[in-house]
Amino acid sequence: MATDDTVVIAASLASLRTPKVETFDTRALQQLDSAHFLHPFTDHAALRDKGARVIVRGQGVYLWDSDGHQIIDGMSGLWCVNAGYGRTSISEAVYRQMETLPFYNSFFNTTNVPAVRLAAELVALAPPQFSHVFFTGSGSEANDTVVRMVRRYWDILGQPERQVIISRRNAYHGSTMAGASLGGMPGMHAQGGLPIPGIRHIGQPNYLEAGQGMSENAFGLVAAGWLEEEILAVGPDKVAAFIGEPVQGAGGVVIPPATYWPEVQRICDKYDILLIADEVICGFGRLGTWFGCELMGFKPDLISFAKGVTSGYVPLGGVLIGKRVAHALLEKGGDFNHGFTYSGHPVACAAALENLRILVDERLVEKVALDTGPHLKAAFNELATHPLVGHAESCGMVAGLNLVRVKGASMHECVPFERALQVGMLCRGHMFELGVIMRAVGDRMIVAPPLVMTRAEIDEMAARIWDCLDLTLEDVRSRGWL
Amino acid sequence: MATDDTVVIAASLASLRTPKVETFDTRALQQLDSAHFLHPFTDHAALRDKGARVIVRGQGVYLWDSDGHQIIDGMSGLWCVNAGYGRTSISEAVYRQMETLPFYNSFFNTTNVPAVRLAAELVALAPPQFSHVFFTGSGSEANDTVVRMVRRYWDILGQPERQVIISRRNAYHGSTMAGASLGGMPGMHAQGGLPIPGIRHIGQPNYLEAGQGMSENAFGLVAAGWLEEEILAVGPDKVAAFIGEPVQGAGGVVIPPATYWPEVQRICDKYDILLIADEVICGFGRLGTWFGCELMGFKPDLISFAKGVTSGYVPLGGVLIGKRVAHALLEKGGDFNHGFTYSGHPVACAAALENLRILVDERLVEKVALDTGPHLKAAFNELATHPLVGHAESCGMVAGLNLVRVKGASMHECVPFERALQVGMLCRGHMFELGVIMRAVGDRMIVAPPLVMTRAEIDEMAARIWDCLDLTLEDVRSRGWL
Repeated sequence: MATDDTVVIAASLASLRTPKVETFDTRALQQLDSAHFLHPFTDHAALRDKGARVIVRGQGVYLWDSDGHQIIDGMSGLWCVNAGYGRTSISEAVYRQMETLPFYNSFFNTTNVPAVRLAAELVALAPPQFSHVFFTGSGSEANDTVVRMVRRYWDILGQPERQVIISRRNAYHGSTMAGASLGGMPGMHAQGGLPIPGIRHIGQPNYLEAGQGMSENAFGLVAAGWLEEEILAVGPDKVAAFIGEPVQGAGGVVIPPATYWPEVQRICDKYDILLIADEVICGFGRLGTWFGCELMGFKPDLISFAKGVTSGYVPLGGVLIGKRVAHALLEKGGDFNHGFTYSGHPVACAAALENLRILVDERLVEKVALDTGPHLKAAFNELATHPLVGHAESCGMVAGLNLVRVKGASMHECVPFERALQVGMLCRGHMFELGVIMRAVGDRMIVAPPLVMTRAEIDEMAARIWDCLDLTLEDVRSRGWL
Repeated sequence: MATDDTVVIAASLASLRTPKVETFDTRALQQLDSAHFLHPFTDHAALRDKGARVIVRGQGVYLWDSDGHQIIDGMSGLWCVNAGYGRTSISEAVYRQMETLPFYNSFFNTTNVPAVRLAAELVALAPPQFSHVFFTGSGSEANDTVVRMVRRYWDILGQPERQVIISRRNAYHGSTMAGASLGGMPGMHAQGGLPIPGIRHIGQPNYLEAGQGMSENAFGLVAAGWLEEEILAVGPDKVAAFIGEPVQGAGGVVIPPATYWPEVQRICDKYDILLIADEVICGFGRLGTWFGCELMGFKPDLISFAKGVTSGYVPLGGVLIGKRVAHALLEKGGDFNHGFTYSGHPVACAAALENLRILVDERLVEKVALDTGPHLKAAFNELATHPLVGHAESCGMVAGLNLVRVKGASMHECVPFERALQVGMLCRGHMFELGVIMRAVGDRMIVAPPLVMTRAEIDEMAARIWDCLDLTLEDVRSRGWL
């Protein structure tokens, strides 16, 4: 792309970048939505009665709905819009690639320039043990790939009986049948004949739920020890791998004690078991490091990624492959009979390359580590003083707080609400109304804002959250639940 | 988008549409590719030695590689670029959507305008029994979704024991673990612990392989009868669904006899079993109808789709849901605990809307049925006169021909080459060199060109194929295989 062309495009597309005051017939869109669109994870009888909220525009950390309400997006779309909305340079990179080569496959001994460049760039950004990338279209497809890849690895090494993958309860590893099986969500396992065979689940390193009477660091060793117990129960020669999110996302922003991951690493090494980091949420700066494993102090053999790699602008996922596994697959494996039409999609890869350039050039990962991450932590510490909040934690640009009936001196001394009251959902309803997106996992309220969120915007978000907590407190009092 | 803006964009982006003479260092790209990019379905030790071919540009039905060679794309990328390369209006629609709202999720009672519009548009284009759409990111995710959706359907109806899905050998239904399990590819089942439980495979309606001594129509009834045998073997009250591609794609363009699908429909109706059409390849005009089931004369309850819905410009897939299943899921199902971050991705949906507008406005589906499809058939009938070709068939814009050692009066009287000689791969090698993309499935050579391919371009493609057949014939003679 010559520079003069770039100038022409930039100037000529300026008109498109000016937000338009477009009007929408919200009710008509809601009716069409209800008539034809089966939403993910949704009770449609309930949705039809109230109508879906129609999101029409995004800029920076803000969204607007079809009625013109402005919303501060505390969840980065769905843990993915790391670079924020309205990144014209990504739109331009995508446009250029579509005009040049909108698609070609990478089967049959062919490749394309953005896929090659992105593979090299990802390896350069990843920890040093990584050499190769397998591209998919999503985090689900990435985790699904991991299952067959680790089993294939052990096949090649002459240990085909190593089939079992150990994961954790309340883990989230996507929604294909294999991904949902790796995950530990009871609601997903209850439908469609899950989990598939060869997946086992151990407890999560959730200090609140299981660490009473212990220090956090002592509990981290105990929780890691559950892995060793499971390995011995299954038989070490039958275990292929352990998989975990460095910080569990959909499970409720479960931040493990500092002792947890190094001990998991030690156990995997002891039994020669592959270690997989699901970095779909933690990757690309979320915790203030490029990958969550770097902050948590472990060296995985495989990393699954998606979301932040393109900031969600175009669907893309993949698996980073460490030298140990890559060597076997490449040198001894022959064909690995697996792949997707959109593996190495040139447009998705072009979006990723520009998104990563933004993260690097704007030093967003360092900013999370040194500036906005600590500011988010301070803001959540302040929110923890609210009468409805038992405790709050954060790590980089994820944070969570627990709604409780009675505050205590420590998190284990707080008294929770009965689950059936669904106080978290009550709180989420107010968030909707007051224009801030926060997710409810039971009574734990969580955020994962765009990495571009400034200190002032964090303060604004925290102020709106405080107001929602006040409204929730009023509800809870008026219903006699306190 | 106001009209004056459209004019500004169209004029200003003209420079980008002019193909650039960009130079590439092919060897450097190949080395980077080999060092970091794990390709799908590829033997990397072999690939490293020769180096990947780098595809850099596409326009209409043509591709160019990094050394400037022009290639006529007989495979539409990977059965997907139905509208051809270089569709500026899709690039512009994507650019506009990215500048407006590059991503938002459709979980948590939210929706977005392109997803709603696309759901309505797809339902309008689909056969009348369809009312809803579940969006995924790929055909793999769509077929993976189908497994849980049909099992969930029977759960809701109080028949949870209906778990088994019947598919066919050599079927291709994607590469997630569930998709590859539904598929019947032995190479995929040999790696990673496949298939998952609850999937059964019957024979494919391949007249060449199994129809000797019968008329095609008699064989169609026999092949459909295998489904009834399997239903009775499993037990009708344990069978959830039957899934099939109207015309099997990756299995080698297996065009079933006219009697096959109506008989399959009759059998599914008899035992009250759901019928699923995998239209990932056949959908969106490939066979000269919007969906393959319309040509083949059956009425599925679910349709999985991907590829042609966006012409591959942005990854997108989904499941069209007939009223029978939609009613159960929506009215009686509560939450269906399934979904993907990129379900209803606004940018992917915007690309699909513009792609579908192109297919409609340019009457490409009718063109395939009435003009270019018949011309492709004539061209393949001509190729069937080549001494190396036993027989050829086509259906809309898919076609295949079989390389044989000795021609016979009918397809069953031809003498094939020994499989181990890999004559098809030899032929594919010449295709690469002479600039035409054709796929080898054993000794069956197949094409599925963009729907925009003109009569003149079909003639040009056929001429290049003829030359490749000549070169392959020379090889085969010089090696003493004839």
